Amino acid sequence: MRALIFDLDGTLIDTVYAHVFAWQRALAESGLAIDGWKIHRRIGMSGGLFTRAVAREVGKPLSDDDAGRIQARHGVLFRELLPERRPLPGAVELLRWLRDQKITHGIATSGRHPEIDSSLAALGVPADMVVVDRGDVLRAKPEPDLFLKCQEQLGADIRDCYVVGDAVWDLLAARRAGMLSVGLLSGGYGWDELTSAGAFRVYRDAADLHRSLDELGIL
Amino acid sequence: MRALIFDLDGTLIDTVYAHVFAWQRALAESGLAIDGWKIHRRIGMSGGLFTRAVAREVGKPLSDDDAGRIQARHGVLFRELLPERRPLPGAVELLRWLRDQKITHGIATSGRHPEIDSSLAALGVPADMVVVDRGDVLRAKPEPDLFLKCQEQLGADIRDCYVVGDAVWDLLAARRAGMLSVGLLSGGYGWDELTSAGAFRVYRDAADLHRSLDELGIL
Repeated sequence: MRALIFDLDGTLIDTVYAHVFAWQRALAESGLAIDGWKIHRRIGMSGGLFTRAVAREVGKPLSDDDAGRIQARHGVLFRELLPERRPLPGAVELLRWLRDQKITHGIATSGRHPEIDSSLAALGVPADMVVVDRGDVLRAKPEPDLFLKCQEQLGADIRDCYVVGDAVWDLLAARRAGMLSVGLLSGGYGWDELTSAGAFRVYRDAADLHRSLDELGIL
Repeated sequence: MRALIFDLDGTLIDTVYAHVFAWQRALAESGLAIDGWKIHRRIGMSGGLFTRAVAREVGKPLSDDDAGRIQARHGVLFRELLPERRPLPGAVELLRWLRDQKITHGIATSGRHPEIDSSLAALGVPADMVVVDRGDVLRAKPEPDLFLKCQEQLGADIRDCYVVGDAVWDLLAARRAGMLSVGLLSGGYGWDELTSAGAFRVYRDAADLHRSLDELGIL
């Protein structure tokens, strides 16, 4: 039994650029101005790793309190900037098709409830779909925990799981979990970045993946 | 006499992600919702080309009036989102060093006065520096006009000009102008995208370029 495990932000929902800009503002307000592209390339890793990486980049140590405060401020700005979530092209249709075909699939995201709830609602994710979030594991991507937890809940074998993600962190975590992975350009990484990180195929977005499922050798 | 011609947004000033998000909001408000990454990869091309590309993407024709209105709304949102401009690492120091060393250099941007004025001020650009903007030419990047106009004003030979830019549009325009080009990652493109578009070297940002000037063979 093959199974598809999807990342959420940048893979199914168009939130990456709002996240980048919300982080950039939240960090700048705390005197931690940092280049947009460096934030972009760190989206999708665990929030703790992210804030530590930023602190190293800026050369200022960051207390846990500061990190928590900046994360909370990011959340507020993000919801202000993007009150409505927009599914990426083909995402809703692909998930619906997988359900109809009874192909095992789930979502594993470094995001948290309740922040991800509007994204799941916009995607029309039914209540019984397997969704593993940051709160379900000790360590987020690029640790393999989120994907392994999702695989367990899906009841699939590790070697039968295919991760679909837009960020290098998804692809690294997939490799560490022993899973194959597919990259999507819809989060703004370049083709080579995804391929070098281990994606055996790269597609533009969920719609392109849906059209190309035959190339994956999974159906 | 060698000359360096710099792009502005994403090359010297950290504005790309604010531009992406401002475009995304302005377009969504006009019923033209479009993926963030597709906007990102079109930043730095002429505004006219950009809005036409978006219209094709969304599959709705766009009148000149609509295009103008969306461009104006983008400007308002951009200034709201990013009231202060932040030079990218090393940009101010590199420009100062080039002035001190009397190495010919200028800026050629698809942006316009007065929108670019705060960026130029943040960079400490002196009044006598050659800055060519959208208003000085008929056609913006990836047409070669901006770089050719800058080269003329600098009094340099085309074959002695090196373009420094963060976007594929800079590198394509440089090739069409007959100039060599150097890519910077600071606008969020991947290394391979810049190399494939013609950059003979790629650096992280202006600071990295400054440290690596010996590798260019221009000094």
